[in-house]
Amino acid sequence: MKLRVTVFPKAGVLDPQGKAIERALGGLGFAGVGEVRTGKVMIVEVAETDAARAKAQGEEMARKLLANTVIESFTVEIL
Amino acid sequence: MKLRVTVFPKAGVLDPQGKAIERALGGLGFAGVGEVRTGKVMIVEVAETDAARAKAQGEEMARKLLANTVIESFTVEIL
Repeated sequence: MKLRVTVFPKAGVLDPQGKAIERALGGLGFAGVGEVRTGKVMIVEVAETDAARAKAQGEEMARKLLANTVIESFTVEIL
Repeated sequence: MKLRVTVFPKAGVLDPQGKAIERALGGLGFAGVGEVRTGKVMIVEVAETDAARAKAQGEEMARKLLANTVIESFTVEIL
């Protein structure tokens, strides 16, 4: 089973990479670009075949390793 | 309109960050973890209101700035 774990900075946390992309897109001539937020995404293969248990495992992975929950929020989806 | 641009290394391209996460998850006691692939995800707000044109704009942004299409593939979704 494959999990997709997506990690973004929480609302209100600065995202300098996103700001840099905003400016760069403007510089490349893209008009009408608003806010850009950047995050990380991880596809994790797990042996678990029960969807609910696999998702719970992914959430535990995110809390323990993949996300810094002080400043980041995460979502786990089954693919 | 919001676009989600997801960028992953192409199949066959080394992903050392993913390998490090695999090892770290094993070290934390997670059993049955297979391959881990890591990528980037960007949420881009655009003024365009036509979904097809917004998606095309996102694809152009990915080709020009957000992805290195030599080693990375990308997908653009409307949120």
